[in-house]
Formats: sequence, C-alpha cells, structure tokens
Amino acid sequence: MTRFVDKLAAAVQRNASLVCVGLDVEAARVPPRVRERPDWIAHFNAGIVEATADLVCCYKPNLGFYEALGSAGWDGLRQTLAILPADVPVLLDAKRGDIGSTAQAYARALFDDLGADAATVNPYMGFDAVEPFLAYHDRGVFVLCKTSNPGAADFQDLVCTVDGRSAPLFEHVARAAVRWNQHGNVGLVVGATQPGAFRAVRAIAPTVPLLVPGVGAQGGDLAMAVAEGVDTHGAGVLVASSRAIVYASSDDNWQAAARAATLALRDEINALRGAKSRGAPTLP
Amino acid sequence: MTRFVDKLAAAVQRNASLVCVGLDVEAARVPPRVRERPDWIAHFNAGIVEATADLVCCYKPNLGFYEALGSAGWDGLRQTLAILPADVPVLLDAKRGDIGSTAQAYARALFDDLGADAATVNPYMGFDAVEPFLAYHDRGVFVLCKTSNPGAADFQDLVCTVDGRSAPLFEHVARAAVRWNQHGNVGLVVGATQPGAFRAVRAIAPTVPLLVPGVGAQGGDLAMAVAEGVDTHGAGVLVASSRAIVYASSDDNWQAAARAATLALRDEINALRGAKSRGAPTLP
Repeated sequence: MTRFVDKLAAAVQRNASLVCVGLDVEAARVPPRVRERPDWIAHFNAGIVEATADLVCCYKPNLGFYEALGSAGWDGLRQTLAILPADVPVLLDAKRGDIGSTAQAYARALFDDLGADAATVNPYMGFDAVEPFLAYHDRGVFVLCKTSNPGAADFQDLVCTVDGRSAPLFEHVARAAVRWNQHGNVGLVVGATQPGAFRAVRAIAPTVPLLVPGVGAQGGDLAMAVAEGVDTHGAGVLVASSRAIVYASSDDNWQAAARAATLALRDEINALRGAKSRGAPTLP
Repeated sequence: MTRFVDKLAAAVQRNASLVCVGLDVEAARVPPRVRERPDWIAHFNAGIVEATADLVCCYKPNLGFYEALGSAGWDGLRQTLAILPADVPVLLDAKRGDIGSTAQAYARALFDDLGADAATVNPYMGFDAVEPFLAYHDRGVFVLCKTSNPGAADFQDLVCTVDGRSAPLFEHVARAAVRWNQHGNVGLVVGATQPGAFRAVRAIAPTVPLLVPGVGAQGGDLAMAVAEGVDTHGAGVLVASSRAIVYASSDDNWQAAARAATLALRDEINALRGAKSRGAPTLP
C-alpha cells in the first residue's frame, strides 16, 4: 500500500489542491431523486466523487453519519470505499479512542477491514489509546488537538503545567503528538474557527499535516488557517469541507454545484497560499 | 422506555449485583465449537447471557470488537441486542465524541437505531459533543473521566487551573459532568486501576453512577473501587468485567465457567459492600 503521506502529496500536487471533501451523507439533505434509489448512499457519493476527483487532495467520510443509518449506512460506506479513486487518499473521520486492546480492534476495523489511508483519533485516553493506530506506519493518524466546535474551549484551553511549562491542554497534546511521530505518520486536527491555535501548533509541530475543519457552515477563518497553517512548502494543510460542497444544491444540478463549490474553495485556498491554481475545467 | 437509572436500580436490586458483563467478542478467544457456527457472535453472547442474566446489573458490548469484524460484527451486534433480556440495561461502550451535528448522528445510531439504554462518551471536545446524548433524558451517558489504562496519566492527570482552583484534568471533567447532569442521566468512567481517583471523584460527584473498568485482566483494585466508589446506598457502581467472565473457559464448559466467574465477582463485591449476597444458584 502506498504510504498515506506520499499518496496525499501526490494528490495535492496533481490536483493543485488542499481541499478535503467530507462525504457526510444525510438522508434529509441529498437530492430527492437520489434519495429514492435503494443504493442512494453509494450513488450520491459516487456522483460527488465523479464531480470532484480532479480537484481534491483527500476524501473524508465521517463514520457518525453512516452509523446513524444502521446496516444500510455501513453497506453504503463499504460500497463508497470500493468506488473511491485509488490515487486520492481516504481519511476516515472516526475520532476513536479506547484502551489498548480495544484501540487495536478499532485500528483493525478502520485500516484493515475498511482499508482507510488515514483516520482521526481522540487523545483523551493517552498514548496507549493511539499506539495501535500508530503501529500502521503507512497510514495517517490525525490526533484531535484544537477542534472547531464551541466546546473546544471547555477542556482543550485549560492551562496545565508540565515540566514547569504552562500551556493550554491542546498544546500539550500537540507536543505529545510530535513525540509519538516516530514513523512520520502523525497529523493534528486544528479548527479554522480557532484564532491563535495555528501559530501555537505550528511552533510546536512545524511539519505534521493539519486537518482543518470549521470552514463553511461553522464560520471558520480560511485566510488565517491557510496563512498560519501551511508548512514551508505551502502545503501540509487539508481544508475539510462537507456540507458546503456535497449539499451545494439539492436540485438535479447537484453534481455541477458540488464541483463549482470545490473549485471555488480550491482556488481561494491557492490564492491564499500563493500557489499556481489551475483553470476551471468543466464537468467531465 | 424505562429510564436507564430505574432499569439499572431494579436490576441491581433484583440480582443483588453490581456486575456489568462486557460482551466483547473476539474470534480467537471464543470456544472453537462456537466459532464454527455462522451465527457465532450472537450464539456466544446468547450463551453468556443465558448463564449470567440473573447475576448482573448491566451488559456492556464494546463497539470496537464488533466493528473489527466488519459486516458480520454489526449483524452479530444487532442480533445480540435483540436477544438481551428487557429487564437488564444495555450500555454500549462506544466512547464517541464529535461536533454537534455529528454527535447527534452518533447519538441516534446508539440510542435510536441500536436502542441502547446507555453509552460512553469522550469529553475532549467539550459540552456540545456530549449534549446530543444528554438530550435523551431516559438514557445514561457515561463520560470518560479517569480511565483504567496506563495512558490515562498522559493528559487526565495534568494539573489545570480553573477559576483559581488547581486540579487534575479528570477532576475538572467530573465537575463539568455534574453541571451537565440536569436530567439525572450522567455517569462517569473511573478505572479500578486508579488509586485516589475514586475519593476525588466522589467528593465532586457523590451520587452519579460510576462505570468501573480495570478489574480482572487490567489488575485494578476491586476492594478500593468498591469501598471508595459506592454511594450512600451501597450502590452507584457498575463493575465492568469482560475477558475474565466471557472467556473464563474456551472448553465446552464455557457457560458454566462464565456463570461461576460472574457469581464469584458478584459475591466478592457484595462482601466488600456489606450487602446481602444471595446463594449460589446453578445453571438454569
């Protein structure tokens, strides 16, 4: 299997894109004509992929939306994973975290059974909850650091003292993630809604990839996230967008609308990072 | 639906038990003769339930083990949930946590689709990641506080200062959980491997139920957990045990062995809490 970081770098380069499209299926939001089909989950995702595969660096299904749909959701997720293009990495947004033996079961589920290139994990339970994921050296492991939601302030911002150094909890998590990055497979999740977090995290972890949720519906600051988040190569950031892309339209033009939204976000990011953005190809 | 707390209290009373059996299926550990069956997951769990249903206060499947088995795992989980006795509550150990809209999807998955009486959640993302679970007033929501694994020390023990009060992170989590307990549906997870944690948590949260992993294979201190964890009624603690019960034997006597292990744990806990323990009934 190609390493996640290499697959990601190739897709970033090939598609001149830092856009990570969130494949979050919601029955109430997909176009009614799609929803009528028995295979609507995979059909909808296939349509989004067809419309965007040359404009993105990553696809990110969030497992919560599939679990909420029961057996049909899991079947739809498997069908979706089977049709995703081999040269665009898949990050399963699962936010798992459990004691060692269970974390190992979760890692097997995400990396072996579902075949994901990368996954998100929750650091609250510490190293041994993350270690079974890290043991897959060819996959990416994105550790929640400073998340995009309002509740991020509840605990992630609490100032703790470690070895005489006082800093918010999320900075201690970033520092731990750097220690855990023995195989170059660790990333961090930092929300675009969090001013100040990018500078703080980049000071600690200058090179790990950052998964950046919170643009679009959550109102994050894209310019800040790109300016302060990109690494010295102008990359190293995956800007996640789901609803604003996949539900850009619920009419029959949903594919074209998804493509237009992806293109607009890609080009906006590229302008911000000063990279050469390609033109505006039409739907294949 | 009967409220989780009432269902739990009734089972604790009826079975004179604080034992919560973890239904964690692992292909390599179930008896070979069971493993041969196509429906081995539900068959194994049904056998454990048949052998223990009058000795426990709760059943706790951990989703990681089912996810690791793919579609067969999810089917087996559904079949298991369908045959669990209606008067013993089911706690799905899922440790979920995500932003509001996704947390809502997870809550629907666990409480509506799978029909759990209670679930575990991860507090790292703060209030809005837990709120969609709390909105189910009749279910139980167990917030990870001080977990049983070695990595618990990595972040949960970091000393943070909130409103001038310096305390380990897990105590701040306990304090938040008490604030979140507006509908009497919050519990906390505190590992039996954590000396000192029970006194600290009980000082903050004297009445919420505690889910206590870490006895058995993880080497926790049962006497300490019971002595310092039980509430003023001698209850309020769910002692979780999985491997030591469900894999007590991999021979044909696996049901009798599971029953004997459950009975021994039940009676040991009852002796520790000074409650009247019932006799030793044989397999029904």
